[in-house]
Amino acid sequence: MSTNPGRSRSPLPRASALAERLRLLVLTDRDLAAPRPVAKVVDAALEAGCRAVQLRMKGASARELLAQAKDLRKRTHLHQALLFINDRVDVALAADADGVHLGPDDLPVQVVRDWVGSRLLIGYSTDDPDAAIAAERAGADYLGCGAVFGTTTKEVGDEAIGPLRLDEVARAVAIPVVGIGGITRANVTEVAATAASGAAVVGAVMSATDPGEAARALLASFRSR
Amino acid sequence: MSTNPGRSRSPLPRASALAERLRLLVLTDRDLAAPRPVAKVVDAALEAGCRAVQLRMKGASARELLAQAKDLRKRTHLHQALLFINDRVDVALAADADGVHLGPDDLPVQVVRDWVGSRLLIGYSTDDPDAAIAAERAGADYLGCGAVFGTTTKEVGDEAIGPLRLDEVARAVAIPVVGIGGITRANVTEVAATAASGAAVVGAVMSATDPGEAARALLASFRSR
Repeated sequence: MSTNPGRSRSPLPRASALAERLRLLVLTDRDLAAPRPVAKVVDAALEAGCRAVQLRMKGASARELLAQAKDLRKRTHLHQALLFINDRVDVALAADADGVHLGPDDLPVQVVRDWVGSRLLIGYSTDDPDAAIAAERAGADYLGCGAVFGTTTKEVGDEAIGPLRLDEVARAVAIPVVGIGGITRANVTEVAATAASGAAVVGAVMSATDPGEAARALLASFRSR
Repeated sequence: MSTNPGRSRSPLPRASALAERLRLLVLTDRDLAAPRPVAKVVDAALEAGCRAVQLRMKGASARELLAQAKDLRKRTHLHQALLFINDRVDVALAADADGVHLGPDDLPVQVVRDWVGSRLLIGYSTDDPDAAIAAERAGADYLGCGAVFGTTTKEVGDEAIGPLRLDEVARAVAIPVVGIGGITRANVTEVAATAASGAAVVGAVMSATDPGEAARALLASFRSR
């Protein structure tokens, strides 16, 4: 990884391979997936070519989170896809996930990096170029940047930053940056036109009538670059 | 520890020393401590002889939890007291706490033990003798058992199990067991009369007008055994 070239991380992707897998990062949401189980929607996205999944489960206990993470671990492994756990480093390690996604309210990137070494990839959320550089230096492997178009799922800031700011953040660092927030098949080309490596979505896949078709459409914009 | 005698854990207390420190385990509660900061109430308990504190902070982010844990870490160190973090193993490790307290909804004891080795003490909540034995075998260092007298703080089951059941659980295992749930200075002698090593309290200290005096009164029952 760019921030620590001496670190051995053979089973985990290098920056370019990581960027490739992050063309579409699907975040889970039980409520949006319902009445379908999250696993079913994730399977459809994986079969469509998605290679990165982030488990979020608001209000879930660690035990519930671990059970869901272990289930998604099997499914992601079948497709050589990465699995990230939101916020909880302990659950990520217990579930043998590839990484953890941290935000400003979570444990600091540096603290987690110092502690987990190369065992986990670390994602961090920011829409600020300086904070992006700081996170890269602290050991982040990729960044989520948004809300690009505003969002209703409250995973990122409410205010839309727009594709230009996303581009600015993506150009500020060497690690992959994915846009997040309100990205749909209608506007994903605007994300693909920036320096971002990919798009992170919640509703665009979780609440899609045909999640596989939705994932394919989102991936297509980045494949054609 | 009894479950794994070969494990080296020199900076952490052996079973008997652990039992001694667990005569009074004070659990934090921001709401009950208010308008006083939790740290002030904990300081009073530590000055009164309390040697074990468990950080709980409902609804707090990992970042808030870490800040509070680091603050309590300094305070507990000053009094050679143990610091446990509720539920979050990652925060416990990041804050250099002595241990983590797990319940049936948290990560399984065995999973955490396999992963953290001897770096953390592990507490587990149960009111069932068989589950107590299983937790001891899985690597728990102490148990919280209750609700002994029923409780309003919802940290443990609502139904009162009574001192006899506490005694039964404490006799089922070699590791220390602390009673929890509705324990006050009025009924703590009933807890001290069992095989339990101590009492875990929330309200009895957190909402006490004089937390130091409350802690002293609770400790006295176990000291005189």
